[in-house]
Amino acid sequence: MNHAGSEVTLSGWVQRVRNLGAMTFVDLRDRYGITQLVADETAPAEIKEAVNHLGREFVIQIVGDVRERASKNSKIPTGEVEVALKKVTILNQSVVPPFTITEDTDGGDEIRMKHRYLDLRRENVRKNLELRAKMAHYVRNYLNDQDFIETETPVLIKSTPEGARDFVVPSRMNPGEFYALPQSPQTFKQLLMVAGFDRYYQIVKCFRDEDLRADRQPEFTQIDCEMSFVEQEDVLNMFEGLTRHLFKELKGFDPGEFPRMPYEEAMEKYGSDKPDIRFDMKIHDLTETVKGNGFKVFDEAEYIGGVCASGAASYTRKQLDALTDFVKRPQVGAKGLVYVKYNEDGSFKSSVDKFYSAEDLKKWSDAFGAVPGDLLLVLSGKKEATQTATGILRLEMGKQLGLVKADDFRPLWVVDFPLLEWDEESQRFFAMHHPFTAPKPDEIDLLDTDPGRIHANAYDLVINGVEIGGGSVRIFNSELQAKMFKTLGFTKEEAEKQFGFLMNAFKYGAPPHAGIAFGFDRLVSLFAGLDSIRDVIAFPKNNAGRDVMIDSPATIADAQLEELFLKVVPVENK
Amino acid sequence: MNHAGSEVTLSGWVQRVRNLGAMTFVDLRDRYGITQLVADETAPAEIKEAVNHLGREFVIQIVGDVRERASKNSKIPTGEVEVALKKVTILNQSVVPPFTITEDTDGGDEIRMKHRYLDLRRENVRKNLELRAKMAHYVRNYLNDQDFIETETPVLIKSTPEGARDFVVPSRMNPGEFYALPQSPQTFKQLLMVAGFDRYYQIVKCFRDEDLRADRQPEFTQIDCEMSFVEQEDVLNMFEGLTRHLFKELKGFDPGEFPRMPYEEAMEKYGSDKPDIRFDMKIHDLTETVKGNGFKVFDEAEYIGGVCASGAASYTRKQLDALTDFVKRPQVGAKGLVYVKYNEDGSFKSSVDKFYSAEDLKKWSDAFGAVPGDLLLVLSGKKEATQTATGILRLEMGKQLGLVKADDFRPLWVVDFPLLEWDEESQRFFAMHHPFTAPKPDEIDLLDTDPGRIHANAYDLVINGVEIGGGSVRIFNSELQAKMFKTLGFTKEEAEKQFGFLMNAFKYGAPPHAGIAFGFDRLVSLFAGLDSIRDVIAFPKNNAGRDVMIDSPATIADAQLEELFLKVVPVENK
Repeated sequence: MNHAGSEVTLSGWVQRVRNLGAMTFVDLRDRYGITQLVADETAPAEIKEAVNHLGREFVIQIVGDVRERASKNSKIPTGEVEVALKKVTILNQSVVPPFTITEDTDGGDEIRMKHRYLDLRRENVRKNLELRAKMAHYVRNYLNDQDFIETETPVLIKSTPEGARDFVVPSRMNPGEFYALPQSPQTFKQLLMVAGFDRYYQIVKCFRDEDLRADRQPEFTQIDCEMSFVEQEDVLNMFEGLTRHLFKELKGFDPGEFPRMPYEEAMEKYGSDKPDIRFDMKIHDLTETVKGNGFKVFDEAEYIGGVCASGAASYTRKQLDALTDFVKRPQVGAKGLVYVKYNEDGSFKSSVDKFYSAEDLKKWSDAFGAVPGDLLLVLSGKKEATQTATGILRLEMGKQLGLVKADDFRPLWVVDFPLLEWDEESQRFFAMHHPFTAPKPDEIDLLDTDPGRIHANAYDLVINGVEIGGGSVRIFNSELQAKMFKTLGFTKEEAEKQFGFLMNAFKYGAPPHAGIAFGFDRLVSLFAGLDSIRDVIAFPKNNAGRDVMIDSPATIADAQLEELFLKVVPVENK
Repeated sequence: MNHAGSEVTLSGWVQRVRNLGAMTFVDLRDRYGITQLVADETAPAEIKEAVNHLGREFVIQIVGDVRERASKNSKIPTGEVEVALKKVTILNQSVVPPFTITEDTDGGDEIRMKHRYLDLRRENVRKNLELRAKMAHYVRNYLNDQDFIETETPVLIKSTPEGARDFVVPSRMNPGEFYALPQSPQTFKQLLMVAGFDRYYQIVKCFRDEDLRADRQPEFTQIDCEMSFVEQEDVLNMFEGLTRHLFKELKGFDPGEFPRMPYEEAMEKYGSDKPDIRFDMKIHDLTETVKGNGFKVFDEAEYIGGVCASGAASYTRKQLDALTDFVKRPQVGAKGLVYVKYNEDGSFKSSVDKFYSAEDLKKWSDAFGAVPGDLLLVLSGKKEATQTATGILRLEMGKQLGLVKADDFRPLWVVDFPLLEWDEESQRFFAMHHPFTAPKPDEIDLLDTDPGRIHANAYDLVINGVEIGGGSVRIFNSELQAKMFKTLGFTKEEAEKQFGFLMNAFKYGAPPHAGIAFGFDRLVSLFAGLDSIRDVIAFPKNNAGRDVMIDSPATIADAQLEELFLKVVPVENK
């Protein structure tokens, strides 16, 4: 609908009816926006009659003449014109919806999820899904141009004990046996490399049966990619290119070359393997600086570190208490908080004045490079846990001081991850990335002597503190892969049973290969400026894994269970 | 790799090594083809040494100079040039593969499926998957251009008793409850229309737990589409456009406007709801023509029909016996075959000469429009079954007489399907398409009086006798939908439990809508000239639903079953 003077036929939903006596205005909503319809003095009686019977969310088709509006509305695309009604057909009626279809009302989470089809009528919600479709489009364009072949891998695969919990699917044709839904197409994409496919990608649903948080869903979507005859550098360049392409196409700017940060530096300076580098406020290691003054908490700590909050020396007692409460939360996990106010007049006021003189505290502030007016916040304890807690405190201070701008995007690569993590409870190593990740070539020998010290050719793409993608160079040698499984505590039989097909495939000429997977939902929500992935998913599930709209999961018929050779064990008899 | 004179670095697999004394030739295979590498008299000793240690399927990287070949091979893209080796690096070795990687050997079904990653190295197999990726690309281009929004619908949904058997997924968080994998996103795409998405598509995995045949897989891919504010005509035009776009882009020709054929005509003239119109040989109804001559089989038959096989009067006794055996097969289901040879000299010879004179048979041949030299083949029995059997016989004769050309593509729309099918066994109606299909508006009243006579606004896209897509105009009124469920034998409670969310959604202003779904695997295999969909799927399953490569499905750990509150019932105790 565009030009004044022409006759149009429009279909859509009644957003609103305003009866102003002689004139009746109807706002008609369709996928492209709102159009104002008018029945004025000149309209035939049957039009006026019809219009007066319209209710909210009625579906109508109208015919009318486009004309310029008396009072223009420059806020909406069709605000310059209106349509003088000549014919109105009600295609379907509507009962009163449980919430009004506008950007700023949604009736609360439970109701909007139950009536998701109404929630999706809201422009802001639909726009998120349009952004999602567009992003998929630009991802495919870029990868097609780079000769990647989009290839579908199976959804009905095999359960493996590594990683998160699998969803399983009983097989009727193979009694007592189960398929599993893929947590990722990892082994299949590696087999495609063995098959000579060279460059593979897929935008693909993956599944994890985990307890859910706000940003987790049992089914989620990955941009899954793999390349042959490449090294880490090639992969980083290729997918930095993809990410910049998306920023250029969808956000209208190029974020430039991505910095690269080793995992250890990220932990030391940001207390996180996914640093938010939109603001500075790096963590400083004070372990050597502050010991030996008789403050037992510090003297006994493995690690002491903190951040310098610029201009926050004016924080009140109440604000500082709130910060102390913050760091003591279980999600942060610190035992307490030491603060040092570097006052505007050059004096110091700290929570440890009993142990440290002004000269001592000057040394601290020098270590931070602080200036008068700054606030130093210091945590202590076990090294990694304290770095992490300080990292969380850093993010909180960044927020409180307004250092984080929503429309600022600062991607980086985190590289050189440890290959393995030691798990105290099960007394074994776990793969930090996954068991197919290649050790750095010059560290392979450590597999026999000190596996915990090995670094991996693994990398994460981090944007604004969110892990958007991750990948690695893969092992492509069947003996090294077997050795890796051994290091991870697999017996030969277990490794053979679970991954024999992959190790076997590697015997027939596997090429060097590497890959990456992007969390597509997260990438879309980042671009949409949303905290949760839920609103970029058309029909999400709630935290109990339920789709409250269709009321799923649900019980199934006994006959179905019987065909599958299954019995449900009542919870109380478990 | 292109021009003579330049230095290149290539990576790939050793296809073949030919040692001709002074010269050694290596065929290097990568995703783009075969390149001939040469170590000749001038090559350094270490190159010759390396090359002589290469085995089939070794992975190598080489550096060399491109030069013109002495004996050119115009059959392959790189056949004009060869590469004189300067450096050879073995990246990985290979044990001897179980079959040679060439187009014409595959080691048999079992072995190639077990080593699918080797099978996929064969150029013809990889080309099928490249065609698949290209087709998806052109589908998306076309639909994006037409303002369709690609939207992902959930994979973990709810089991419904209608249609084929569901795969189910036990929910750990909701003990005793199950998700189901979608047989299609039918209800979700309709909800997207209620949500005002207007034009939706998705290339999506769907699942059916059926006993498998050669052209069925437990997981398969659909191009799934839905539009609002449209009628049947709009949908046919839109997707005829899509199909022609694919022919133009991928096959280089436009098949022109698609004819439309009512279901009843398809059954009468082709004995099939998916007629192969690449050749004529229509079925003729002889029921009125041939009765009353004392031939009991015909006199008692509900229907008598046949085809005229042009120029086949010369068929031998043996050939005719073979045809009789053919029609008696359970898949065809006829009781016997009557033939009439219309000899070149104008005489007749039939299997029913005892009952029919030459004059009688002339009447038959006139009914067929037969000419001397033709062979009439006639079947009789119950109407629909006999039409179907005659249709199968027609296809067989088309094949025997060479009337079907592989590179001829003849699409058509079959329209005006019956809405319902009566099932004698369960004494109820089933939806021929699915329960959301709209009856033809002027036949809605028959729902109360004679539902079996109602036609649907449903349509199938058929190409060369294969059903490629199907869809319908949908019911968008909650009362009509409720009535439909009642006609299908649902109690109010059952309908509410299974589809309450959809009927409820329809109360809030559902727009008129219609859609279609294409069998993507079938469409690709049709374009690839293959009979089965298996070779257009990267990792297909066998007829027992097994992936023999990864050996799935498989048993799972007792702990997994316990977490899911499930017990496997041993088959013998069932």
